Amino acid sequence: MINVGIAGATGYTGQELISLLTRHPMARISALFSTTEEPKPIAELIPEFKNRIDLICTKLNLQALISKCDFIFLALPHTVSMGITPKLLQAKKKVIDLSGDYRIKDIKVYERFYCHKQSDKINLKKAVYGLPELYRAGIKKADLVANPGCYSTAAILALTPIAAFDLADLDSIVIDAKSGVSGAGKKATAELLFCEVNENFMAYKINIHQHIPEINQELSKLAGKKLNVTFVPHLLPLNRGILETIYIKKHPKAKNNGLKLLKLYRKFYKKEPFVRILDEGKFPRIKDVAYTNFCDIGIKEEPDKIIIIAAIDNLLKGAAGQAVQNMNIMCGFPEETALG
Amino acid sequence: MINVGIAGATGYTGQELISLLTRHPMARISALFSTTEEPKPIAELIPEFKNRIDLICTKLNLQALISKCDFIFLALPHTVSMGITPKLLQAKKKVIDLSGDYRIKDIKVYERFYCHKQSDKINLKKAVYGLPELYRAGIKKADLVANPGCYSTAAILALTPIAAFDLADLDSIVIDAKSGVSGAGKKATAELLFCEVNENFMAYKINIHQHIPEINQELSKLAGKKLNVTFVPHLLPLNRGILETIYIKKHPKAKNNGLKLLKLYRKFYKKEPFVRILDEGKFPRIKDVAYTNFCDIGIKEEPDKIIIIAAIDNLLKGAAGQAVQNMNIMCGFPEETALG
Amino acid sequence: MINVGIAGATGYTGQELISLLTRHPMARISALFSTTEEPKPIAELIPEFKNRIDLICTKLNLQALISKCDFIFLALPHTVSMGITPKLLQAKKKVIDLSGDYRIKDIKVYERFYCHKQSDKINLKKAVYGLPELYRAGIKKADLVANPGCYSTAAILALTPIAAFDLADLDSIVIDAKSGVSGAGKKATAELLFCEVNENFMAYKINIHQHIPEINQELSKLAGKKLNVTFVPHLLPLNRGILETIYIKKHPKAKNNGLKLLKLYRKFYKKEPFVRILDEGKFPRIKDVAYTNFCDIGIKEEPDKIIIIAAIDNLLKGAAGQAVQNMNIMCGFPEETALG
Amino acid sequence: MINVGIAGATGYTGQELISLLTRHPMARISALFSTTEEPKPIAELIPEFKNRIDLICTKLNLQALISKCDFIFLALPHTVSMGITPKLLQAKKKVIDLSGDYRIKDIKVYERFYCHKQSDKINLKKAVYGLPELYRAGIKKADLVANPGCYSTAAILALTPIAAFDLADLDSIVIDAKSGVSGAGKKATAELLFCEVNENFMAYKINIHQHIPEINQELSKLAGKKLNVTFVPHLLPLNRGILETIYIKKHPKAKNNGLKLLKLYRKFYKKEPFVRILDEGKFPRIKDVAYTNFCDIGIKEEPDKIIIIAAIDNLLKGAAGQAVQNMNIMCGFPEETALG
Repeated sequence: MINVGIAGATGYTGQELISLLTRHPMARISALFSTTEEPKPIAELIPEFKNRIDLICTKLNLQALISKCDFIFLALPHTVSMGITPKLLQAKKKVIDLSGDYRIKDIKVYERFYCHKQSDKINLKKAVYGLPELYRAGIKKADLVANPGCYSTAAILALTPIAAFDLADLDSIVIDAKSGVSGAGKKATAELLFCEVNENFMAYKINIHQHIPEINQELSKLAGKKLNVTFVPHLLPLNRGILETIYIKKHPKAKNNGLKLLKLYRKFYKKEPFVRILDEGKFPRIKDVAYTNFCDIGIKEEPDKIIIIAAIDNLLKGAAGQAVQNMNIMCGFPEETALG
Repeated sequence: MINVGIAGATGYTGQELISLLTRHPMARISALFSTTEEPKPIAELIPEFKNRIDLICTKLNLQALISKCDFIFLALPHTVSMGITPKLLQAKKKVIDLSGDYRIKDIKVYERFYCHKQSDKINLKKAVYGLPELYRAGIKKADLVANPGCYSTAAILALTPIAAFDLADLDSIVIDAKSGVSGAGKKATAELLFCEVNENFMAYKINIHQHIPEINQELSKLAGKKLNVTFVPHLLPLNRGILETIYIKKHPKAKNNGLKLLKLYRKFYKKEPFVRILDEGKFPRIKDVAYTNFCDIGIKEEPDKIIIIAAIDNLLKGAAGQAVQNMNIMCGFPEETALG
Repeated sequence: MINVGIAGATGYTGQELISLLTRHPMARISALFSTTEEPKPIAELIPEFKNRIDLICTKLNLQALISKCDFIFLALPHTVSMGITPKLLQAKKKVIDLSGDYRIKDIKVYERFYCHKQSDKINLKKAVYGLPELYRAGIKKADLVANPGCYSTAAILALTPIAAFDLADLDSIVIDAKSGVSGAGKKATAELLFCEVNENFMAYKINIHQHIPEINQELSKLAGKKLNVTFVPHLLPLNRGILETIYIKKHPKAKNNGLKLLKLYRKFYKKEPFVRILDEGKFPRIKDVAYTNFCDIGIKEEPDKIIIIAAIDNLLKGAAGQAVQNMNIMCGFPEETALG
Repeated sequence: MINVGIAGATGYTGQELISLLTRHPMARISALFSTTEEPKPIAELIPEFKNRIDLICTKLNLQALISKCDFIFLALPHTVSMGITPKLLQAKKKVIDLSGDYRIKDIKVYERFYCHKQSDKINLKKAVYGLPELYRAGIKKADLVANPGCYSTAAILALTPIAAFDLADLDSIVIDAKSGVSGAGKKATAELLFCEVNENFMAYKINIHQHIPEINQELSKLAGKKLNVTFVPHLLPLNRGILETIYIKKHPKAKNNGLKLLKLYRKFYKKEPFVRILDEGKFPRIKDVAYTNFCDIGIKEEPDKIIIIAAIDNLLKGAAGQAVQNMNIMCGFPEETALG
């Protein structure tokens, strides 16, 4: 039984972490932290937890975090984690950071996309990118896991076999991504008000979103050459879920060569508990992955191009679910624990 | 042709006023004001107005308001109007105030519900309550009209015949009201974020909402005795529209007396252009009144009680539409102008 | 370990039953039935079950149902269950019927509200009304449980202490109920199309809904006299959840008598695992009960009246969740199993 | 003043046509037809028209259509129009067909995408494709106008300058399209039920949608060579609006050549009343075009590719609004009449 702490407990991701961990037989939440000025029962801050979770949430306190917890989830705004993490690691804690702070290995790229200095270069090097399907072995031994971005998780899982085996023109990748509103967090801004989002739909951060360098980093590594995807995210009028429609040209020589991508994908992900390759002619829907840790992938092969559609729940496989999956791996628990 | 100014142009109500007035053949918008620090084209603040309205919006400026406008709509937060209105009236302007500042005649009641001092008692006395179906003659001659609250409009129209003719037990009135989110305005608060409202529904300000004294004031006046309704508002996960379900006991002696309320309502509202009494067995739906200035009313008569359902668009008959209807009356324009 | 069958597996309630039962350590789904003409994997009919449930769904077949299952959930349209249930009981099966067929003890009342003959009077007498908070002992010994209606569950739980202890004027009960769309089932009718429900809200079956006799039956029993509630259901533009706002006059003599209802409710429901009485000033929200088996109850006491608000997930505490709770009781399993 | 008939008056498009035409000073609706068995007031079939439109809707009757109307809108399911149109044209009526029947000039292509024989080849030749921005002169003289598909309208307007002036690699066009649910019409199918669409998002008819041949036909004509776009439509959980995100590679030689597309687009569409080219850094949102006849276009130019985003209201510029715009052109009315 491990003692788990959550910093950022009242955000949407923190709330999901709490929900998952209360159902986890080998983990016990021992401390919750948020921006609340005075200590308050979590059920007062998040009413749905009434009669379910009997814990006090306090302002973030490094001392308490270290003394009460063996394992720590940081569900904090970008740039905050890197101020805390060195001390947590020094105190021999295991840490999963759900922000973008430790995802980008190239410091210049990080600083360009996040507009902030990377102040913890030492731990950045040790951090393992927490996508179990790619880095399970590394995660197993890691003290610090950088939990992937939600958009990145869907994109990388959808493109890994193609990038790894050079099955198409990797310079032609276009990712048209759509996310539910919880991906934007719980901050009170006018653009996220109900009346602004409901009955509306739009693109944002067009080809400049901070998940782009993450996708490029991982796909480039798989491909063995520098890739640069086109990526446009959109805001869907629904609470949770991401769906990405991905377009790739085939290699010119490969036209009509009878590639059987579906078969290959099915084989590649055969042992993965949370990747579902859909049957021919079937495609992902957000409702089929919402409230689950699955990533659904559907493929349509045309003579000259490939269309891949992937869907996840942005708060689960795209954040808290994947974090618990990583915790399970890091702690030697069965990987699906609390995620079924 | 009158020159019209709007203070509070970028809120949801202000935006509707702009939309309506640009279609009005006898009114010309001559000035727009909001909280913007620097003057900006309204189409930059509200992108849907691009190529439709070519006006600059500036910070509220009394001098400009007075010099540029004959007729002024104040779509400002509660308590702001009463600081400006005296000067506007002194400058011989006609004013429609869409806030609650001039609706409640009893100062003590006002101060209890709005938690703010009433500082303009003189004009409060002159202000006419802008419900055309009740006060058309007064509105015609008024310089200051207090535009009714959205919930109040539906409730009062639904109950006027019953209160005026003592057709039921007026001490038993229960109003269960449900409103779309635009009724809460455009302020950025966490409770109004998309993810908090979507897939959610709840009551709020239970029997303490500030529209209660308005409803009591008008119904009491009609009944000739002090009434006190029970009123619970709820927040609907949709943009615009109010539906109120109203329950009234019949007079004990009146049981089964064959009252034909529907007929009576139809007769009472016969000449009203914006009240539709639905046929027997038909009841209002928000979608039938959304984007219109109609108030739909349906009635079900039971042996011992009456159930009345009323629906309006909270931004139109509940705010901007009714304000333009009042302007039409005050200026001698055909009452339906720009509202069809 | 019991073998469980579900008839009506592909409706919204059936689907929830499957979800719950796959997480149940003492129950094994052994047979699924629906209207499908040809046998099909359930994951083909309900794609979200892919890689989660590996079962074939066939057309309803009494023989198979009896031979494969010990315990049977009937999630069928009203009037279908009563044709099957006698044979299931004869074969010594335990049955939970989620339709309205066995809920109403007074046959005339049943036939008036359901417009259908009651053809199984014998088992109707034996059927226990499956509200554990009222009939736990009876459910424990029952072979046939009539699982309550969704609206009825919330209304009866909200009103039981008041009815049982005569704490208010029981002839004055008004229930204004609002339900998400899944309550209407999955039948393809024009009124339930997305564009008809979205951005819309309306009342329906005004004071004639088939859950009224259920509420009256149970409250009358508690009160020891015939009660007749006023009940108006409304259709909310959201998937799941019911919220009911209930208005009751206090006894005339009881005005201002300092009744402390909240305290009393808290005591009454103290040991109930799925009833949460909210603190003073707090009221239920659909989002706090969605995807849970909780019934949340909030109370506002006024000098002369009581306002009670109750919320449940219509598919869980209002249907499948309560059915599994009943199964747990009938089988001697811990009551909260698979519902946490 | 012309007498206008609408066949298919109770579908979403028919309903919009009625709304628009009742505000049209030079058109009078003289006959409404739908699938209703018995003649009924339109306000009984579409309650929002109560007190607004006093017309009887009857079953489609060619005789009545011809005798009562000069100008006819056919808002019928695909394949129905071509059975009626020849007789209407013979009777010297002007016809706008809102179905796909007369849009595709290549009969083989039509029959492949619509799975139906083209039975009116003679009038197909005469039919003018009703996109005023491309065919205003032809529409002016036409007797039969094929009103464009909703997706096609947005795509063609977004791509016309690029295709006409060969500004990018026209073989690389990828259109990722998203539409509100009203685009699917009012037919009662399980997939369009509220609970199936709400909180869901998915692609459908992946690269096989029937609007593809329309887009290819028009862009090929502009380019002077056969083009073949990649097109994936998705279903948005909202009522009305289409947004398309379009990706095009630049010509290899053209990299970084300082093309100023925005300027060029602004010039190209300068005189178009219903096309708005947004300023640099601004992009379309569905809420800015909903309930209007505008097509908003935003452009992002990257060194090696172009991203164009276009948005329309699928029921207005994508159907009924464009049809009225075409009627205005055909009848010599000011083009913006009833569309402001």
